[in-house]
Amino acid sequence: MLTAAERDRLCVVLVGSRNPLNIGAAARAMANFGFGRLRLVRPYEPSFREARSAVGAAAVLASAEEFAGVADAVADCALVAGTTGGEQRQPAEPLERVEAGAERMRAHLGAGARVAILFGSEKVGLSNEELSHCQALVRIPTEAAQPSMNLGQAVAVTLYELIRSDAQEAEGAAAAAATAADRERLVEVLAESLAASGAGHEAGEARLRRLVQHLALTTEDAHAWLGLFRQMLWKLKNGG
Amino acid sequence: MLTAAERDRLCVVLVGSRNPLNIGAAARAMANFGFGRLRLVRPYEPSFREARSAVGAAAVLASAEEFAGVADAVADCALVAGTTGGEQRQPAEPLERVEAGAERMRAHLGAGARVAILFGSEKVGLSNEELSHCQALVRIPTEAAQPSMNLGQAVAVTLYELIRSDAQEAEGAAAAAATAADRERLVEVLAESLAASGAGHEAGEARLRRLVQHLALTTEDAHAWLGLFRQMLWKLKNGG
Repeated sequence: MLTAAERDRLCVVLVGSRNPLNIGAAARAMANFGFGRLRLVRPYEPSFREARSAVGAAAVLASAEEFAGVADAVADCALVAGTTGGEQRQPAEPLERVEAGAERMRAHLGAGARVAILFGSEKVGLSNEELSHCQALVRIPTEAAQPSMNLGQAVAVTLYELIRSDAQEAEGAAAAAATAADRERLVEVLAESLAASGAGHEAGEARLRRLVQHLALTTEDAHAWLGLFRQMLWKLKNGG
Repeated sequence: MLTAAERDRLCVVLVGSRNPLNIGAAARAMANFGFGRLRLVRPYEPSFREARSAVGAAAVLASAEEFAGVADAVADCALVAGTTGGEQRQPAEPLERVEAGAERMRAHLGAGARVAILFGSEKVGLSNEELSHCQALVRIPTEAAQPSMNLGQAVAVTLYELIRSDAQEAEGAAAAAATAADRERLVEVLAESLAASGAGHEAGEARLRRLVQHLALTTEDAHAWLGLFRQMLWKLKNGG
């Protein structure tokens, strides 16, 4: 989740986009996910502001800014992320999946910095010169056989990744994430159970804690597991 | 992450789509994310197979199946999920965000079941009759002021949510997701342990399976848990 102020610090930069329909589709996805800052570097067709498919994106298109080059378009941004299908021959930076890249972007936005995400032209993506302005390179995890996404769809997926919640959060208020205390209780009862069964030595509490930390647990599930393991522990301690 | 077999069990069902370009865009997103089963219920224009924008989606379009109604299109599916902007007046099922809905879909796909995701027509979405075929209703978390997504973008975001990894997983190749078989082995050893401790009656294997499905497990972690619980089970069976 991003606050309105955080979303306002994100700039979507389309570089050399050729098709006004795609610019309109990108603007529509921005409106869908609550982003407003659209920057266009050398749009191929200046008629983009009338893009027909841009249902509900009129405000985003009307306030879009045009720039002659990438340097100008990202001058006020602390983090510049380039999107790529991974086919570039000389990536300036290590390529990361958008799931991990979005985490970095959210961290910057949360810290008050402005972030730019660059999308290249439909035909050739971002050039090496354009990529050289980026401190991060992200790719949407598409299939090797069919890596190239439609521009509007790539923008929609990237913005969605920025605003999505963890599935547990998304289930609603009831499915709150388990607290550290819940996790620690789970570690304890597991460690005790293992110790009681003579296997504690091998496992080690630190290893157990690491395994439990890996689990994406809701409070409800954590309590369900705790209940089950306490029953097992009782049995282990009190015999058959 | 979904395996190729799991992806093959997912059916994307477009109901009453009017614009062949949107059908093409949906097919392209399917190709990008490795899905092949496209089903069309009463497509408005039969020319969809030639959809021009469908770069790289020719195979998906060529094998698309047409149906006269939703019931026929989802007859072989164990879970039918309808997508909605949340504006429907009589939702048949509680509405959940796509992040949570995708987790359920992955669980079904992992367990060998076929899953359908329904997308309604561009103008009106899914009708109440169409929604009545669904056991799950999911929505992409769009802004209240601009909830309605372009069809091709909605398909892209939904499929992306199905195949994306946790950010931690995404940072390395080592963390493969546990298979359904690993999960089932974990369910079995837990059920046996609980039965041996006299607590099996209360818990129930279905409830255990649900708890295990909630866990985001890597193969490595699944094997670590299996090892630990097998030791406990041995102890339970063979006494102190």
